[in-house]
Amino acid sequence: MSDAAARPGPAAEPVDVHPAWLPPAAFRAVGSRRALVCGAGTLVGTVRDELAQACARYGGTVAWRPGPGPVDGTGDVDLVLALTAATPLPAPVAEVAAQCRRHHGAGALGAEGFALARTGDVTVVLAEEPAGLLHGLFHVVRLGESAFGAARGPERHRPAMRLRMLDHWDNVDVHPVMGQVERGYAGGSIFWRDGSPRGDPARVRDYGRLLAACGVNAVSANNVNVHATEARLLTDRLGDVAAIADVLRPYGIRVHLSVTFAAPVVLGGLPTADPLDAGVRAWWAATTRQVYDRIPDFGGYVVKADSEGQSGPFTYGRSHADGANLLADTLAPFRGVVHWRAFVYDHRQDWRDRSTDRARAAFDHFAPHDGRFAPNVVLQVKHGPMDFQAREPVSPVLAAMPATRLAVEVQVTQEYTGQQRHVCYLAPWWSEVLRFAPWGDHRTVAALAAGDAGEGGGLVGVSNAGDDPFWTGHPLAQANLYAFGRLAWDPRLDPAAVLDEWIGLTFPPGPASGHDLVRRTLHEMMDGSWRTYERYTAPLGVGFMVRPGHHYGPDVDGYEYTPWGTYHFADRDGVGVDRTRASGTGFTGQYPQPWRDVYESLDRCPDELLLFFHHVPYGHVLHDGSTVIQHIYNTHFAGAEEVAALRRRWDRLDGLLDPGLHTRVRERLDEQVRCAEEWRDQVNAYFFRKSGVPDARGRRIP
Amino acid sequence: MSDAAARPGPAAEPVDVHPAWLPPAAFRAVGSRRALVCGAGTLVGTVRDELAQACARYGGTVAWRPGPGPVDGTGDVDLVLALTAATPLPAPVAEVAAQCRRHHGAGALGAEGFALARTGDVTVVLAEEPAGLLHGLFHVVRLGESAFGAARGPERHRPAMRLRMLDHWDNVDVHPVMGQVERGYAGGSIFWRDGSPRGDPARVRDYGRLLAACGVNAVSANNVNVHATEARLLTDRLGDVAAIADVLRPYGIRVHLSVTFAAPVVLGGLPTADPLDAGVRAWWAATTRQVYDRIPDFGGYVVKADSEGQSGPFTYGRSHADGANLLADTLAPFRGVVHWRAFVYDHRQDWRDRSTDRARAAFDHFAPHDGRFAPNVVLQVKHGPMDFQAREPVSPVLAAMPATRLAVEVQVTQEYTGQQRHVCYLAPWWSEVLRFAPWGDHRTVAALAAGDAGEGGGLVGVSNAGDDPFWTGHPLAQANLYAFGRLAWDPRLDPAAVLDEWIGLTFPPGPASGHDLVRRTLHEMMDGSWRTYERYTAPLGVGFMVRPGHHYGPDVDGYEYTPWGTYHFADRDGVGVDRTRASGTGFTGQYPQPWRDVYESLDRCPDELLLFFHHVPYGHVLHDGSTVIQHIYNTHFAGAEEVAALRRRWDRLDGLLDPGLHTRVRERLDEQVRCAEEWRDQVNAYFFRKSGVPDARGRRIP
Repeated sequence: MSDAAARPGPAAEPVDVHPAWLPPAAFRAVGSRRALVCGAGTLVGTVRDELAQACARYGGTVAWRPGPGPVDGTGDVDLVLALTAATPLPAPVAEVAAQCRRHHGAGALGAEGFALARTGDVTVVLAEEPAGLLHGLFHVVRLGESAFGAARGPERHRPAMRLRMLDHWDNVDVHPVMGQVERGYAGGSIFWRDGSPRGDPARVRDYGRLLAACGVNAVSANNVNVHATEARLLTDRLGDVAAIADVLRPYGIRVHLSVTFAAPVVLGGLPTADPLDAGVRAWWAATTRQVYDRIPDFGGYVVKADSEGQSGPFTYGRSHADGANLLADTLAPFRGVVHWRAFVYDHRQDWRDRSTDRARAAFDHFAPHDGRFAPNVVLQVKHGPMDFQAREPVSPVLAAMPATRLAVEVQVTQEYTGQQRHVCYLAPWWSEVLRFAPWGDHRTVAALAAGDAGEGGGLVGVSNAGDDPFWTGHPLAQANLYAFGRLAWDPRLDPAAVLDEWIGLTFPPGPASGHDLVRRTLHEMMDGSWRTYERYTAPLGVGFMVRPGHHYGPDVDGYEYTPWGTYHFADRDGVGVDRTRASGTGFTGQYPQPWRDVYESLDRCPDELLLFFHHVPYGHVLHDGSTVIQHIYNTHFAGAEEVAALRRRWDRLDGLLDPGLHTRVRERLDEQVRCAEEWRDQVNAYFFRKSGVPDARGRRIP
Repeated sequence: MSDAAARPGPAAEPVDVHPAWLPPAAFRAVGSRRALVCGAGTLVGTVRDELAQACARYGGTVAWRPGPGPVDGTGDVDLVLALTAATPLPAPVAEVAAQCRRHHGAGALGAEGFALARTGDVTVVLAEEPAGLLHGLFHVVRLGESAFGAARGPERHRPAMRLRMLDHWDNVDVHPVMGQVERGYAGGSIFWRDGSPRGDPARVRDYGRLLAACGVNAVSANNVNVHATEARLLTDRLGDVAAIADVLRPYGIRVHLSVTFAAPVVLGGLPTADPLDAGVRAWWAATTRQVYDRIPDFGGYVVKADSEGQSGPFTYGRSHADGANLLADTLAPFRGVVHWRAFVYDHRQDWRDRSTDRARAAFDHFAPHDGRFAPNVVLQVKHGPMDFQAREPVSPVLAAMPATRLAVEVQVTQEYTGQQRHVCYLAPWWSEVLRFAPWGDHRTVAALAAGDAGEGGGLVGVSNAGDDPFWTGHPLAQANLYAFGRLAWDPRLDPAAVLDEWIGLTFPPGPASGHDLVRRTLHEMMDGSWRTYERYTAPLGVGFMVRPGHHYGPDVDGYEYTPWGTYHFADRDGVGVDRTRASGTGFTGQYPQPWRDVYESLDRCPDELLLFFHHVPYGHVLHDGSTVIQHIYNTHFAGAEEVAALRRRWDRLDGLLDPGLHTRVRERLDEQVRCAEEWRDQVNAYFFRKSGVPDARGRRIP
């Protein structure tokens, strides 16, 4: 049962929606306490309502003091959530506020931060802004009983990144090939259905609540590939966007919109969309003003320009800086931002031409323009130079544009990582990316995305949520959505700890025994699942080898002779892409030291990226002592066997979980077993047929 | 301009439809003569109207004597077309009739045959039935002036096969993947559009006229994959079929219908479609009676059962004979036939399993049932054991079922032969198939399909026509449609002569000079185009290597690791499918002598089928002295170069042809050049990477 049932507004269909990481039991600790909320505003109201709902279930009480004056419902309290401006502050809170000011100075909590302390018998959450109070509440929920234990704090919590956004690749119209959600594996869209709003504001609100509870604060509501109907969200269908914004606002989520760069032509009837044309600038300015008239806290625009067939400034002989700044200028008066995607490359490449390298494209296009982008342009860079593979190096663009606000884009939806039919917990992968040090020193990718004082471009994820009753198709894929928000808030978090946090919230201890087994099994199944996925799919960082088009399942040569720039160059002697400066495409030269030399060196290049950077003979010996060909066999046998083990582990939980959820996961695991064996056999057969080298352990290769 | 403009009935859209092989000028010789038509009936009226239209243009006259009595418009005549029953016959006709009777006996012309003679100054066409008179007229049109030259005959012309049918894989509803016409490359359907009849009876009539003029006498009006809407053509949408039958009837074309074997369930609401169930039999009997009530000359049913997801008797544990005979019994009282397709195989095969062989499937399924099919069942057998490849052996089913009526099915639509973007004149290929002698003696495939006295299953082609203004997308693909009809009428015809016949009709001499160049160039371009296509695509009979799904363009491994049963098994040492009895799947054993031993033998197997029957090392030496790998390189370089030459030749005709036609062909040739180079490079690169053997002539392999 979802909390949606308790909300106003008609549901589009009577489905039991899974509560994800906010089941009622997650609120047991706060719901059984006496709480006091001090402050006013929409988000403070949300805090109060959340507590009231929890207390109604678990016997606690909520008092609310919106402004100065006596507390409504006086008496002792266990939990105070207060805005610093809500004077006079109750005594324990005033003490915490004073400590905070002493340690950090005034304004130290920021727009979304909060302080947490346990003093005497009172747990205090203090925030400067209502959004901070909401995040503080969800932090206390996460802590559960431990929030009411020993004295602590005051601890200051602030998001590392100001912008923590989920992009929805949702179409308004059903696309004839891509469907309602491009690369969506969780049913339809939460927002749209068959050309219209889906008509289920309760579901949208529940989604916003889940996002707020893990730290997300922005959503882009439509696909970056903007088709005819979707283009009109900017103008005559703006009301549909405003309706979403109204529903998400109480959870502190801003709405952004993907727009087409050709909008002045296709919507405005202008003869050009040239970013330097005065009429074009006027059209965008007027259009943007109308957007903010309707949605005062509108987040801004998301633009995929000059990419995979989308319009862009190249059409008019202008640069991407020209294009992005045009939109940025119109958004600036309203403090909006433009997310300008750096995913620009030639998707009509000649596979015969080994000198062209798609991996180079984003750097070649954007790095020369560093410093030319307006301050409210966020250049949105995919984490790797290719396209959300299970293994890639970090994009060299991230180290090449110190004078540009950069967002790191990750793909929560599992396009290339099992499409929510495979268990693949991605936080360890994102964590590796975020902890990567482009210069080998303290400066991490996370720090680049965070920028000074969190004013960088932040973290963007392509959402994996849809109108599926489990939100994400595969119930365990909820963990990826949760972890995305948590890492965006704090990229230093340990992914394994985030996993346990998610497990603890989503599968709270119930009356049945076996809860330890549930937690332990889920952890075992999920923590290493990304590496398992990597083992049975494309080897050693070479990428792709998926079925063209839908990208599910193996097809080793599927993209090998296509215009997409995604090759492995396997022949009878060896495999891999030579991207060295010495003899290859020179891509290694896009990195600063030490990586430009590490990746260049056959000896020093990390094994897991070997075939991304080097073409090597099958007999090349890896750091672990095995040859490349034997590594391929070993990992593919091991990966498929690990999936079989996952499947067996899941059976242990039969009877300990909601039967619907258990069945859903079991069905997906069956498919994962089948698909992992298919990957194993196709990859092994392909390389055995090519290399002629038998498996050293004599296992069957078909 | 099409003749359609002169016909009644509203055209759905004002397009100039190309007249194909019936331009007005093709009727110049008959249209400038004095003609007499003797006899009555719908088709005789068609003959009269055709002549009247030609004479109105070219100054001749037509007299008609429907029954006994004085001739309407007496006087001398140059051409008489008469039914033998139209007594009293004019003197020259009576003389020809007497000669015919003397030589062949009464009834010797049959339902569609005719006799042709030139006696004195009169050309005589004599027929026993109206359809024969119509075929005779078109024969005279083909002969042109030479029909009115020296004395000749009487020659008897009778179709080798009674059933000469085109199957339309047209959907009524637009299929989400396959579109309006499955495997259609000529625009939409002539019959259907977006769920409804297309509403252009004039176009349907023109189509029937073209078909009659090349000898086709039956059309199946909907896809063999029968979806929900199409199923209803049998019952509540039967009127749509009747309307097509009404329009085609004046040209002697019967309409057939593809039905789903599950019709009793999906249309009749019965709990089963078991062919031995009494209720099912009663439902089919009643339904068929209603069909004939509406369409008295209805041809019969076409059924794809237990194939690629279609329902069939296997569902009920019954045999295909049980299934086919059920329908045949209901059709028999009305002299209808059921075309039962033999295209039954496991399309969910495990690629790892080398013992299963899709090529074996039709024989294994059907041969044991020889003799069990009712006399009005036509078992419709694809010409090869796989699926309309540019090269396959002849299906062994054709020699294995002497007690069954067999139809040979060819694919006029170029699914695997360039999709009407490539010039590929297929008559030489069909002719090879039809002339194939399964026992090495006089008994050919054509004779098997013809049966005794033409009562075999005949020839069936999947139509390549659509609502494209040129009928077939590629204007030169009209020749395939034409040649299909001509070979069905007379499989002994020389494909090169049929080509010239088509060229002569379609590109008649005009006022401009250069007509010889047009004819010569078209012949040069088209006559060898199938072998050219074979050269640059899959080598040595191995087949496929096309992009999965749409089947256009190369993808050597595209089907290699799929469930479709279409593999080449290339590895670093060799390539090909071992279908021998000695070491392979045993498929060679499905052939009688001499082929079972010829194909079994690595030495005697024809080169062009080598990889269909044998897995050989790249160094294997062919009969022409080259190795397999060098043959692959040579043919792919040669094939692409031949296409480049085609392209150059076409430029010669600029200014000599209708500009719209010239442009259309030029654009398609540009694409053919590009695609042939893509085939050349992908196939060569694939095998070079696998074999490591360089081209002996040092040409560039990317």
